[in-house]
Amino acid sequence: MSRIDVLYAFPSTVPSTEISEWLAHFESAGADPTLYWLGATPVIAASGTAGAGPTHLTRPDATVRTTGDSRLGRRELRPGGTVVPIGPTRVGDGSIAVFAGPCAVESAEQYDTIAAIVAENGAVGLRGGAFKPRSSPYSFQGLRWAALDLLAETRRKTGLPVLAEVVEAAHVERMAAVADGLQIGARNMQNFELLKEVGAAGMPVVLKRGFGCRVDEVLAAAEYILAAGNDRIVLCERGIRTFETATRFTLDISAVALMKQRSHLPVMVDPSHSTGNPALVGPASLAGVAAGADALLVDVHTDPERALCDGNQALLPAAFRELMAQLESLAMGLGRPLAGAGRLPVPAAGIAVTA
Amino acid sequence: MSRIDVLYAFPSTVPSTEISEWLAHFESAGADPTLYWLGATPVIAASGTAGAGPTHLTRPDATVRTTGDSRLGRRELRPGGTVVPIGPTRVGDGSIAVFAGPCAVESAEQYDTIAAIVAENGAVGLRGGAFKPRSSPYSFQGLRWAALDLLAETRRKTGLPVLAEVVEAAHVERMAAVADGLQIGARNMQNFELLKEVGAAGMPVVLKRGFGCRVDEVLAAAEYILAAGNDRIVLCERGIRTFETATRFTLDISAVALMKQRSHLPVMVDPSHSTGNPALVGPASLAGVAAGADALLVDVHTDPERALCDGNQALLPAAFRELMAQLESLAMGLGRPLAGAGRLPVPAAGIAVTA
Amino acid sequence: MSRIDVLYAFPSTVPSTEISEWLAHFESAGADPTLYWLGATPVIAASGTAGAGPTHLTRPDATVRTTGDSRLGRRELRPGGTVVPIGPTRVGDGSIAVFAGPCAVESAEQYDTIAAIVAENGAVGLRGGAFKPRSSPYSFQGLRWAALDLLAETRRKTGLPVLAEVVEAAHVERMAAVADGLQIGARNMQNFELLKEVGAAGMPVVLKRGFGCRVDEVLAAAEYILAAGNDRIVLCERGIRTFETATRFTLDISAVALMKQRSHLPVMVDPSHSTGNPALVGPASLAGVAAGADALLVDVHTDPERALCDGNQALLPAAFRELMAQLESLAMGLGRPLAGAGRLPVPAAGIAVTA
Amino acid sequence: MSRIDVLYAFPSTVPSTEISEWLAHFESAGADPTLYWLGATPVIAASGTAGAGPTHLTRPDATVRTTGDSRLGRRELRPGGTVVPIGPTRVGDGSIAVFAGPCAVESAEQYDTIAAIVAENGAVGLRGGAFKPRSSPYSFQGLRWAALDLLAETRRKTGLPVLAEVVEAAHVERMAAVADGLQIGARNMQNFELLKEVGAAGMPVVLKRGFGCRVDEVLAAAEYILAAGNDRIVLCERGIRTFETATRFTLDISAVALMKQRSHLPVMVDPSHSTGNPALVGPASLAGVAAGADALLVDVHTDPERALCDGNQALLPAAFRELMAQLESLAMGLGRPLAGAGRLPVPAAGIAVTA
Repeated sequence: MSRIDVLYAFPSTVPSTEISEWLAHFESAGADPTLYWLGATPVIAASGTAGAGPTHLTRPDATVRTTGDSRLGRRELRPGGTVVPIGPTRVGDGSIAVFAGPCAVESAEQYDTIAAIVAENGAVGLRGGAFKPRSSPYSFQGLRWAALDLLAETRRKTGLPVLAEVVEAAHVERMAAVADGLQIGARNMQNFELLKEVGAAGMPVVLKRGFGCRVDEVLAAAEYILAAGNDRIVLCERGIRTFETATRFTLDISAVALMKQRSHLPVMVDPSHSTGNPALVGPASLAGVAAGADALLVDVHTDPERALCDGNQALLPAAFRELMAQLESLAMGLGRPLAGAGRLPVPAAGIAVTA
Repeated sequence: MSRIDVLYAFPSTVPSTEISEWLAHFESAGADPTLYWLGATPVIAASGTAGAGPTHLTRPDATVRTTGDSRLGRRELRPGGTVVPIGPTRVGDGSIAVFAGPCAVESAEQYDTIAAIVAENGAVGLRGGAFKPRSSPYSFQGLRWAALDLLAETRRKTGLPVLAEVVEAAHVERMAAVADGLQIGARNMQNFELLKEVGAAGMPVVLKRGFGCRVDEVLAAAEYILAAGNDRIVLCERGIRTFETATRFTLDISAVALMKQRSHLPVMVDPSHSTGNPALVGPASLAGVAAGADALLVDVHTDPERALCDGNQALLPAAFRELMAQLESLAMGLGRPLAGAGRLPVPAAGIAVTA
Repeated sequence: MSRIDVLYAFPSTVPSTEISEWLAHFESAGADPTLYWLGATPVIAASGTAGAGPTHLTRPDATVRTTGDSRLGRRELRPGGTVVPIGPTRVGDGSIAVFAGPCAVESAEQYDTIAAIVAENGAVGLRGGAFKPRSSPYSFQGLRWAALDLLAETRRKTGLPVLAEVVEAAHVERMAAVADGLQIGARNMQNFELLKEVGAAGMPVVLKRGFGCRVDEVLAAAEYILAAGNDRIVLCERGIRTFETATRFTLDISAVALMKQRSHLPVMVDPSHSTGNPALVGPASLAGVAAGADALLVDVHTDPERALCDGNQALLPAAFRELMAQLESLAMGLGRPLAGAGRLPVPAAGIAVTA
Repeated sequence: MSRIDVLYAFPSTVPSTEISEWLAHFESAGADPTLYWLGATPVIAASGTAGAGPTHLTRPDATVRTTGDSRLGRRELRPGGTVVPIGPTRVGDGSIAVFAGPCAVESAEQYDTIAAIVAENGAVGLRGGAFKPRSSPYSFQGLRWAALDLLAETRRKTGLPVLAEVVEAAHVERMAAVADGLQIGARNMQNFELLKEVGAAGMPVVLKRGFGCRVDEVLAAAEYILAAGNDRIVLCERGIRTFETATRFTLDISAVALMKQRSHLPVMVDPSHSTGNPALVGPASLAGVAAGADALLVDVHTDPERALCDGNQALLPAAFRELMAQLESLAMGLGRPLAGAGRLPVPAAGIAVTA
């Protein structure tokens, strides 16, 4: 229970000698200061007992009262929001960025085929499930390390950045060498050792909401990464556990807006894992974007019935194409661009594509 | 546990003598038939043991296998969907219809003022809370019967139809004499005596989802009304109880799409009671419409802090105006009209309106 | 939002003239008093602005600060707890009272047979489901009024009091004429018109928790009955809706203890509807009693597979007998008597009983 | 999606050459066999296509049809149940074993004092929180490695075994060197890399249910440990997330009975973290034991208000003493012994103890 209750954000141009002076001031006032970096912005968290600092020093850009666990993620510290670059794709710049692909990488051919299809239809990033956390040890666990070369090769062919799930602190370095962004799955949202390691890695991270966790806990989990100096975080709403059984999880659409309002981090929606039903992926995607999501993460598969993981919720290529068309119209109505629209489709490098 | 598992929907032009012959055929085959009317459409529910009927009879338009409790509401029986007229407003015709007003009618002046504001800004129907089911007997219970004259008077002034909540079977007849549509609140969704009475009344009904009820139970509750011969039903998603406490309830956005797909009845979204937070009403409204909702039910109040019921979730007039503008853009992106748009605003009948 | 925040409970011997003087005192102090009766105890609810009253008046037995919706049910007003007589059975006197029977009355023979079995094995009250609120209009709705004569006849034969569910305010008077206690089902816990009517009837009531309702809402619902002058209320925990699907509902065992601590009303547990699984009825019953429940409500059926309502959760007679034996041992360990133990079993009036 | 659907459990005396023959038989029948060890019991999982094996071989003790993810944990494989030794304490032998202590080890003095108190009052094991997974990085994270010497020292003084939480696969070896049992917290129940590592370590494990996880997922998580050859697992029910806010979590009492029925593993209940309220710890403990729990895990603290972690739910020493007395009576009523009862209290090694 820290007594910290005020955040002071300084201009990124403030000299480090001044930061030292500020820290000394807080220290001497008994305000128990801690210095963090939100990107290039120095933020001092302290108790509110310090009063005004020495007058010759640069004043804070923002002084934010805080209670609870949200500090570096608070929107007041960066009202314009954070843009997270994942390879060439920028999440959080006002555009709608669609990441797509199979739930799990199953083979070179499967991955190449699906990646080419989603690239051709406007996706600006790929799902790349190498490690799959599965409820049962007897289910397919992903190709694990063997998938990494496939990820690299498909990324080269499509030109699209790859999101790869990481499930264990000790794996972070090796995954980070291949992926453009790391994904932390719902079941690991409160694997705090993993969060710290991913924070230290400084890589873009997609942090999925635990299906049993509240919004304040998602924001607190992000603080583990932020406090380690990494602000390249995309929060991902992927549904919560409720008594409703008609959908796999309940997509918490209000949480999308709430996270945008409370935090400066961009927000992604996973319409596939939340609904667990391809017939609902379209409406859930449109709703997610209308509620303010910056990005979508969509399962696509050419042969859902034979998919090794969660096939029953994947869109077929034709349905994905239709979704992209709907998103384009919706984007216009919202006055937002669809990321990558207008860009020439990347040639599919000799891969034969059929829906 | 009925053995009924097939529904036969006949053309509405089929002579009643033929219906009698069909019933006799099912009867003699031991298929235990029941005749219902879905609007003008005769529907016979029977067990699937009857085989083909006499060849000289008109064939069914649709033959639907059914399991579970959904019968007359199944989309297959009316693939084009049901349009529910509430006064001059048509819900379910592809347009986006916004109903708005205060949570509770508090006084003639309060109701007139707010009604005029929402009318002026594009609402096509009014909330009219006369009876308020409240968790505590010590909370404001609504003006009850005393509100009915106010409803009638404000309806006359604005020209907008009024939705009035009914809380008790014995009240239905008297409420139906004044209101354009009856609303059944979440707490009464499984008050089956009330459902039957509302079914018998034949009035338009907004049936709100119980906050502890699954989608299949909403559809089953609608069957009580449908089976009584009333198909003028609008289903309303208004949030469910979950462990998330950052919002008052969790708006189940997937349920909106699911109810549209499974049922031919139009669907409304209540962004106010579901989120309980005016800052979230806008995003939840846009999301609801993007997910396919036909209508919205929005709390608006000129003085939320002094509202006698649920004021803390109401939009101020300016925020409602902004929401309507956003909905107009969104509607364009979705290729749907905003109901009432293009219509001349109703003159506010001498009521002074300020936001 | 009432400003009321203090309750003053007076000795039941205080003359009515003094009560009038107290009310006048509060009135003149602007403390907005309301007089209630908790049994024979006058309770004045008022705002805490009144200061001490005239010194010549009898002082309150208890002065309780209250926030929220719980007033007349607060344990501080009756620290020893309330004993609710249901026929000859007393619920809340420290004993463990078992009510049992079929979920629904199906026929004279079915009801007589099962009633005789549970009576013989130590039940001190009967379930008597005449009206069954069912999710679907196509499910068995109970024998309704036709069951009332059967209830009366079986009560006469067994000597056991009967609990009958009431589903509609207009039915209360007629049900009250036959039953020893009225049951309000989970789906009607917030049917406030029904609560008021049951309050006015002054009959013993078993108030089941709505499966989507919080403990504070159960207590607030009880206030509707208490405020109408009826304190013969047994609260019943019957499970809530959660994401767990292995049981029909989730029995909230902590709520049993919580309701006992916060309220003076006795608490019943329904192990049958909460678990929906006969293999779990035994453990849930023992747990409920260990957590402090005063009574149990157990489904028993001689032919569960052919039961017209919820048969799949009913205990067979042999399992019920075993449960009663386990409860007897448990009761000893808890230092509480099993209600009716030691009493001679009621002769089964010529009904042949086999398990 | 494995096709495996039958488990064959062989006597532990079967020669390994016979096991090889059985495997060859299944292999040649295309039944895709896998050999596991449940303690000393060889279990072959295979598809049900193999028919009877060679007649000269020892027949399986048990042949269990299985669907879903539960295999080695299924009760049919070990109908008498598993006894897990944690130091000298045996969990699952029919007795009621109480583990107690502070939520977190804070200092040598704090830990010694509380350990001595719980030892003196009948606890047969200690909580030993060194690593604390906390929602926020700004909360106390435990003494981490610095606590290990304290655990060892206090264990020596009290003679009681210590349960220590492990939060990261890479920590398992070092924790296992000090603790008598490893605890996997709710937030790590689906940290599958950790489960595998703990499985490989072969140590006794307390596996806490994730607060967003269903019973079938708890059983599937245990399979990760079982499949790695470790059957020393105690399942722990510690409450799930629901809409009820009057308690911190909702203790799922039916799950206790369900896990006992479906699995041969012993079950523990955590009444402290589930209720989050010391006034409810007693009733929840009694209910847990009445429902069939083998063990309890109780937070005790001498100065809850200054506790660094979850103090607000800890029992004071006097309340713990009272709980132990109640458990002793209850145990008698259930015909089960309280573990360690009759044993002389361990002298508190010169530590001054006051409640």
